[in-house]
Amino acid sequence: MLSNRQEIRVEWGDCDPAGIVYFPRFFEYFDACTNALFESAGFRKAEMLRRYGLVGIPLVEASAQFYAPASFGDTVTVETRIVEWGRSSFRVEHRLYKGSDLRAAGQEKRVWAVPDAGSEKGMRGGAIPEEVKARFTS
Amino acid sequence: MLSNRQEIRVEWGDCDPAGIVYFPRFFEYFDACTNALFESAGFRKAEMLRRYGLVGIPLVEASAQFYAPASFGDTVTVETRIVEWGRSSFRVEHRLYKGSDLRAAGQEKRVWAVPDAGSEKGMRGGAIPEEVKARFTS
Amino acid sequence: MLSNRQEIRVEWGDCDPAGIVYFPRFFEYFDACTNALFESAGFRKAEMLRRYGLVGIPLVEASAQFYAPASFGDTVTVETRIVEWGRSSFRVEHRLYKGSDLRAAGQEKRVWAVPDAGSEKGMRGGAIPEEVKARFTS
Amino acid sequence: MLSNRQEIRVEWGDCDPAGIVYFPRFFEYFDACTNALFESAGFRKAEMLRRYGLVGIPLVEASAQFYAPASFGDTVTVETRIVEWGRSSFRVEHRLYKGSDLRAAGQEKRVWAVPDAGSEKGMRGGAIPEEVKARFTS
Repeated sequence: MLSNRQEIRVEWGDCDPAGIVYFPRFFEYFDACTNALFESAGFRKAEMLRRYGLVGIPLVEASAQFYAPASFGDTVTVETRIVEWGRSSFRVEHRLYKGSDLRAAGQEKRVWAVPDAGSEKGMRGGAIPEEVKARFTS
Repeated sequence: MLSNRQEIRVEWGDCDPAGIVYFPRFFEYFDACTNALFESAGFRKAEMLRRYGLVGIPLVEASAQFYAPASFGDTVTVETRIVEWGRSSFRVEHRLYKGSDLRAAGQEKRVWAVPDAGSEKGMRGGAIPEEVKARFTS
Repeated sequence: MLSNRQEIRVEWGDCDPAGIVYFPRFFEYFDACTNALFESAGFRKAEMLRRYGLVGIPLVEASAQFYAPASFGDTVTVETRIVEWGRSSFRVEHRLYKGSDLRAAGQEKRVWAVPDAGSEKGMRGGAIPEEVKARFTS
Repeated sequence: MLSNRQEIRVEWGDCDPAGIVYFPRFFEYFDACTNALFESAGFRKAEMLRRYGLVGIPLVEASAQFYAPASFGDTVTVETRIVEWGRSSFRVEHRLYKGSDLRAAGQEKRVWAVPDAGSEKGMRGGAIPEEVKARFTS
């Protein structure tokens, strides 16, 4: 399975009064890393949305475990891969390291969301094209 | 168990290009709601940190399920309660509604963190005072 | 001129490692206050955008002066008013107080932006309806 | 004068429902670029704060002009330089380009802030060491 490594610099504005990354920022990091993974597979998100007529790839579940804090000035590395493809959803895993030290892990379940004017949500899950899946497995 | 209800206005800046709340903002909402719950129990976070010599109440686990999006201009209500007290950690649950419609749920496991200069993390879990727990159960 | 007062609770996640509001968050506060001012005049932003076919009311200029910090746990009050109406733009002023102490001030120049497929920006300034201006002056 | 160029990828989470960068994020970009400029001069912010006993380099003024939007997926370049050194404050300028197209400009006035327990703010301006200034001018 294709994976992607992304370096992230922990910025001053990412940190809270305890001097460590404010935990919702880890979810922002992970979101950017999912986008970077798609890009590494040849799908820049902005183009991908247009090409496949997507509203987005919104989350239905997100979780994270925080093993040790990351602090302002740290450079961390996030390893990201898709671990499961469904018909209209997929699961992503992230592992965030400082050096070789695992600091946090994250999991996302996302939907391939197409517009649906008839739905109250304004969107529904669409079938993920096989050509998309194929780019992550070869 | 003490619970707290908090109204939150979904701001323009909370929403993404799909026009819905960018999911890490839900974790920010939940974090503010945990703080509001403590405040409703008589513990304003800033004072509580000073009084008990805490670094903070950082998360070791966070998760959320997103059932339906919330959009710019929505007012949502979050119900928050502590569902489990450990010696030095506790679990919080959040349920976010638009009207009577459950839109998202969140779970946090947090640590009562005191400074620990000898630790690489700079902090460790401390025993949660019984007087604190008591304020949430009576 | 119509003005609006908005209470804002400084959240943990708004503050930086120095324990004070991270300055871009003041601009987020001000943005929410501009929206609240419009709402107090009867124009909820989400509806206003639909009703007048607006892309938004994006900024062309923003500035702020920070006189004293605001800290986690503070409740501050922001006074907001429109100080100048142009044909397709307008100026907003914000004054942020803790109690009677002026902590920060902000200024925005915003555009009444309508879609313009022919423009590289995708939008252009449109004429602000007199009925809109009237609601702020009476 | 030393200047620094920083590439920034506009992330999904930086953009608002209009699909363009939410303006307070530009101030976050600029803040990170000021830190990057100091780092290029040999002063990593985290170490610099410790070494000189600083609370931070907080802003007393910030302003920006937005000439054209930046959108999700854009890569922009920010050129940053210090344009004026005072005794205890300094001015920074940022110019944000997409390709050769100037999209936004920003200005900051910052203070070299040392702790001051006697002050209500908890900090005051300290004299900026000549060795610091020297690294930006040679």
